[in-house]
Amino acid sequence: MKEPLRIALAGLGTVGTGVIRLFEANRQMIEARAGRPLKIVAVSARDRGRDRGVELSAYDWYDDMGEMAALPQVDAVVELVGGSDGPALALARKTLEAGKALVTANKAMIAHHGLSLAKTAAANGTSLKFEAAVAGGIPVVKGLREGAAANAIERIYGILNGTSNYILSAMEETGADFAQMLSDAQELGYAEADPTFDIEGVDAAHKLAILAAIAFGCRIDFDAVKTQGISDVRAADIRQAAALGYVVRLIGMADTEMQDDTCKLFQEVRPCLVAKSHPLAAVSGATNAVVTEGNFSGRLLFQGAGAGDGPTASAVVADIIDLARGERSAPFSVPVEELVEMPPADTGDRLGRTYLRFTVTDRPGVMAEITAAMRDADVSIESLIQEGRSREGRDVLVAMVTHEGPERSVEQALRLLSGSESLTAPPLVMPILQD
Amino acid sequence: MKEPLRIALAGLGTVGTGVIRLFEANRQMIEARAGRPLKIVAVSARDRGRDRGVELSAYDWYDDMGEMAALPQVDAVVELVGGSDGPALALARKTLEAGKALVTANKAMIAHHGLSLAKTAAANGTSLKFEAAVAGGIPVVKGLREGAAANAIERIYGILNGTSNYILSAMEETGADFAQMLSDAQELGYAEADPTFDIEGVDAAHKLAILAAIAFGCRIDFDAVKTQGISDVRAADIRQAAALGYVVRLIGMADTEMQDDTCKLFQEVRPCLVAKSHPLAAVSGATNAVVTEGNFSGRLLFQGAGAGDGPTASAVVADIIDLARGERSAPFSVPVEELVEMPPADTGDRLGRTYLRFTVTDRPGVMAEITAAMRDADVSIESLIQEGRSREGRDVLVAMVTHEGPERSVEQALRLLSGSESLTAPPLVMPILQD
Repeated sequence: MKEPLRIALAGLGTVGTGVIRLFEANRQMIEARAGRPLKIVAVSARDRGRDRGVELSAYDWYDDMGEMAALPQVDAVVELVGGSDGPALALARKTLEAGKALVTANKAMIAHHGLSLAKTAAANGTSLKFEAAVAGGIPVVKGLREGAAANAIERIYGILNGTSNYILSAMEETGADFAQMLSDAQELGYAEADPTFDIEGVDAAHKLAILAAIAFGCRIDFDAVKTQGISDVRAADIRQAAALGYVVRLIGMADTEMQDDTCKLFQEVRPCLVAKSHPLAAVSGATNAVVTEGNFSGRLLFQGAGAGDGPTASAVVADIIDLARGERSAPFSVPVEELVEMPPADTGDRLGRTYLRFTVTDRPGVMAEITAAMRDADVSIESLIQEGRSREGRDVLVAMVTHEGPERSVEQALRLLSGSESLTAPPLVMPILQD
Repeated sequence: MKEPLRIALAGLGTVGTGVIRLFEANRQMIEARAGRPLKIVAVSARDRGRDRGVELSAYDWYDDMGEMAALPQVDAVVELVGGSDGPALALARKTLEAGKALVTANKAMIAHHGLSLAKTAAANGTSLKFEAAVAGGIPVVKGLREGAAANAIERIYGILNGTSNYILSAMEETGADFAQMLSDAQELGYAEADPTFDIEGVDAAHKLAILAAIAFGCRIDFDAVKTQGISDVRAADIRQAAALGYVVRLIGMADTEMQDDTCKLFQEVRPCLVAKSHPLAAVSGATNAVVTEGNFSGRLLFQGAGAGDGPTASAVVADIIDLARGERSAPFSVPVEELVEMPPADTGDRLGRTYLRFTVTDRPGVMAEITAAMRDADVSIESLIQEGRSREGRDVLVAMVTHEGPERSVEQALRLLSGSESLTAPPLVMPILQD
């Protein structure tokens, strides 16, 4: 009988108890696949008394989770506490410094401190694993780092936040507005009481920064992710997009560009128009989906549940099985000292088609003013819709799609219009995902 | 500098030259990810003189590829010769017996001899890898064996043959019949001159048998795969399916069932009706897509190019990188001696809804005859369409969808009708994919 892999589990929320349930349900199978016994030996959480619906008596309890990192009978610590800093980060550092492997589902911590944690892991000859930090149960970290390892990745993009996707696809189905669908999502448990991280794209940006670092072998740079949420998307935008053959999705997208002889990193989370023929257009509800475009593999799509206790536990335990097998790939695909510093790309020259929506007062000359600004900024209009003239004095919606052109032209057009009294609300800009 | 992994490459067709082009294009990157140099040291193919558009002078040439397995300067052999037996199998055995790792894209060989090759690999302490044998560039072997390793797999199914999917989706788009679309596919290079393996489901069955063995930890059993091709699917079937909210796809499906206290294996490749809301319905053209349903992960979808030199080379080199990293998972997810013998499941009790299409002479009483057979076999009809009465004396098409019921009832109904003079062609039966 081979030596067991001995695990300490910090955090017994839904994911932590999910991991315990998974061990109970699938133990025999996962040990056969791991090639050795897997043993939870220690657990820690804030409240020992709470009933979590799982039996904990077989595990040593620690009130101070930091203690577990130092236990000689622990080989690996699973951090499911959450939060980018604070106790989670302290535990992660302690664990790696003690030469023990760390498995985490903590996307915020990896997005902010992934590079320093990877350095600590390398310096102490141990492993840092975070499959569950990106897209829940979808094995996309492994898919990218190992499955697509032979490829230069040209782009990586996808639907990285289930809450936003749930809201956008519910808006699409019902025709209702954002506020209504957010409140429905909150009632149904798809959105939290404070939904900011989800609907403003922060959660997606955490995941995107992690994927970009793996895909391009660069130092993770969460702060450089340009982020725009979905709270300004209206039912009317989704209607206009549909009329033009598109759906609206919150897309995280990363690629690299040579600018001034330097390889620069583009990272953006934004609501985008996605052609109905694109595989991501069919992704609805609280689902995640990631597309990688490799120079040999072509387009690969990974899709599944991006959150939830079962899927996330599945990813956590996949990492544990990898540890037990002795699999030791670098956290960000190449050794940490080889990760390249990539400055953020200047987006002004990026070519693309854009959806623009203006809310304007219904009076003569408004259309002339908008189209003149487009002309002066050298933005070429492909199609334009003024939504059905409403009652007198009410706002009117003008939506347009541009021909392909540089982003800076669109920005320039918006600057030209920024002082205009005709606009009754800030315009909404959404890129059109290029096929 | 670490020791290089030294590779011999057997077979220089499109995939073999694709591997060489990949090494040329991505060498620096793949070596960084592999953590050591990767070096092709020897190559072999049938015709040395042929111009393959790649430079081969840097590699030692062997007329007899079997020799390469014995070379002391070779660590791993990449077999891209093809064919389930013959030279490919001889090379594979020689390689593993020499304690060298084998990487292969040969689905027929793995489907027929995977178990014996895995035993040889284990006995000689070396690795057998075949990511490229299933679904081309999609890392689904790894996704299943490692990414979903924490799960009991409940079902695995998907679109496993690009040629068939190209033909079926072209029939859907154009309304044309099978023969026309096959001939188009042949002209466009999506189907071979002899398309039997693709359109009769044999190629998909090879891949399904491999996936099932990994998913369920059982001994691979290609001969037990029940296979039905797409050549009997007519434009009218696709039209009827569409009217009912379905598309037609060639689906490979495997699961397990307890029957008589024994875990039995169900494996089937058949054209199926797939609800338009199912992710596989959106998969069109020469694409592959695999769905795994795990007890914790839920439904995962892996999609991409199932064939082609670039994608297949991408999968081959991913395996090579794994070898270089020292990754050593068991070929079929658990050690070969733990693989279970699973007898084929009896399908009679399986519950499902079924599409049935009859071609009948247009005369009174035919419908009564068919519906009486359904009643006598206890098949409950959910909907029935008799396609628009054609000119006198011409055949008429009767299509129906049954309510959920056991497969044996449908078989019984067909038996009752088998002698009927009203039927002018064998009926077509397609299961409806359960969501």
